[in-house]
Amino acid sequence: MFKVPDHQVAGHEARDGKLGPLVDDLGCFYKPLQDDDRGSKELAFYTKFSSMPEITSHIRRFFPTFHGVQTLAASDGSGPRPHLVLQDVVFGRVNPSVVDIKIGSRTWYPQASEDYVNRCLKKDRETTSLLLGFRISGLKIYGGDRSGFWKPEKKVVQSFTLQDVRFVLRKFVSCNLETPDSVTDPDCSFASAVYGGTGGILSQLLELKEWFEDQTMFHFNSCSVLMVYEKESVLRGETSGAEVKLIDFAHVTEGDGVIDHNFLGGLCSLIKFISDIVNDTEKCWN
Amino acid sequence: MFKVPDHQVAGHEARDGKLGPLVDDLGCFYKPLQDDDRGSKELAFYTKFSSMPEITSHIRRFFPTFHGVQTLAASDGSGPRPHLVLQDVVFGRVNPSVVDIKIGSRTWYPQASEDYVNRCLKKDRETTSLLLGFRISGLKIYGGDRSGFWKPEKKVVQSFTLQDVRFVLRKFVSCNLETPDSVTDPDCSFASAVYGGTGGILSQLLELKEWFEDQTMFHFNSCSVLMVYEKESVLRGETSGAEVKLIDFAHVTEGDGVIDHNFLGGLCSLIKFISDIVNDTEKCWN
Repeated sequence: MFKVPDHQVAGHEARDGKLGPLVDDLGCFYKPLQDDDRGSKELAFYTKFSSMPEITSHIRRFFPTFHGVQTLAASDGSGPRPHLVLQDVVFGRVNPSVVDIKIGSRTWYPQASEDYVNRCLKKDRETTSLLLGFRISGLKIYGGDRSGFWKPEKKVVQSFTLQDVRFVLRKFVSCNLETPDSVTDPDCSFASAVYGGTGGILSQLLELKEWFEDQTMFHFNSCSVLMVYEKESVLRGETSGAEVKLIDFAHVTEGDGVIDHNFLGGLCSLIKFISDIVNDTEKCWN
Repeated sequence: MFKVPDHQVAGHEARDGKLGPLVDDLGCFYKPLQDDDRGSKELAFYTKFSSMPEITSHIRRFFPTFHGVQTLAASDGSGPRPHLVLQDVVFGRVNPSVVDIKIGSRTWYPQASEDYVNRCLKKDRETTSLLLGFRISGLKIYGGDRSGFWKPEKKVVQSFTLQDVRFVLRKFVSCNLETPDSVTDPDCSFASAVYGGTGGILSQLLELKEWFEDQTMFHFNSCSVLMVYEKESVLRGETSGAEVKLIDFAHVTEGDGVIDHNFLGGLCSLIKFISDIVNDTEKCWN
């Protein structure tokens, strides 16, 4: 009944006797509660967030639905363990292209331990977080029947530069991926279908931005934006199924009446990268 | 001909034999070029910025006009020294209320020395910068003939908390200041005249925000937003003369195609504080 997710791109994986999330065939994603306070903090966030009447469905749709906690056998064979039961955000998709982007130039926060602060600060400086206000944490891009998925290794992703990030965000919506790790300039054929248009990724990110300009309830430290779509749907002339979800809430803190300027700044930076791609593509077609 | 500025609220002051800026009675502000690379960096910024045709007058008006470099006797008696010749942004104002707000949750930047990074990081954590995305660097608020100006000491300003910042931003547009350091709740009588309306501070900040969402030329590390207006004009039923200026460009770096997400995030946070005051006031009047 439970199995290792097919389309996870970042975070701990439930393989080789390790602890990681599981999915079922009904659309649920089971995330093991970690022993340290990360598990309890993420549970507290989901519990609070899902019961707040002021969160409209308009915003709620950007978060995985929360179905409570369920104890099941952990993937590492350590026995029964409580898991968060969440919506599996790629459920029902055949060959989704997925990119996980950790938002914020700063992944640490004042309440954290000095040790945690220093580790995060080091990583923020070593990756693109400090420079771009976000970093890519993982991705898989579907190239087609023949080439399958391009899923660079964790180490490769962690060493992405500004140029790599720009390249990946173009490649994510490109057609010429039969030799997926080649240096061919991505054609961005799907940019307008996936990033652009009503309901496209850009318009979803802009809706999120509007919310972040105003909401002062939560600071989403170290959260990710997940962007998903299906290339085959686009090729069939159907809707791309482009979807934006926020995930990973183990480090969310109270906003105390202040907007999450760190998340908002990084989100605006990502929006600028994506709108540049949409604008460049439109120029080519006109 | 040269004199110490009457309305400087932050930075080094040209008093007691110290090096600081001077003004003349024609509307110029003379900022001494510091010996380290701060002076040359600020000069390089003004030189480049003032010659860029892509900066529209719409945006240029938020920056002091640059009139070149002039050598004059330094205020500390050390002899001739080159000074940046800038527009005196409070020239012609009789009793301006002024607040200097350093924008950004991070005042350091990757290219700086480790020593500078550590000093800035410490100060960002000790002040409201990290939490709010900005900190108040200095202020003077005109209370009236009898009370004169309220200008808290540097040490007091440096220890401002979230609550103090909220209080000061309300007090800045309040009438009940005859006992200016009292704990009386500020009445925000001038909120709609100064912060609100067409041409008010909020609408100016929103124009700046729109520019920061798109411009990738400069990163304005450690820059300040100066907000100025004249209480007496408002009381006479004239325009408030509300004006927003960006100042202090000694740490500006190249944007390299990336937006200044650190400045933008902090600016959005300030905008939220100010729009909350405007909205609260409108609620009271309706």
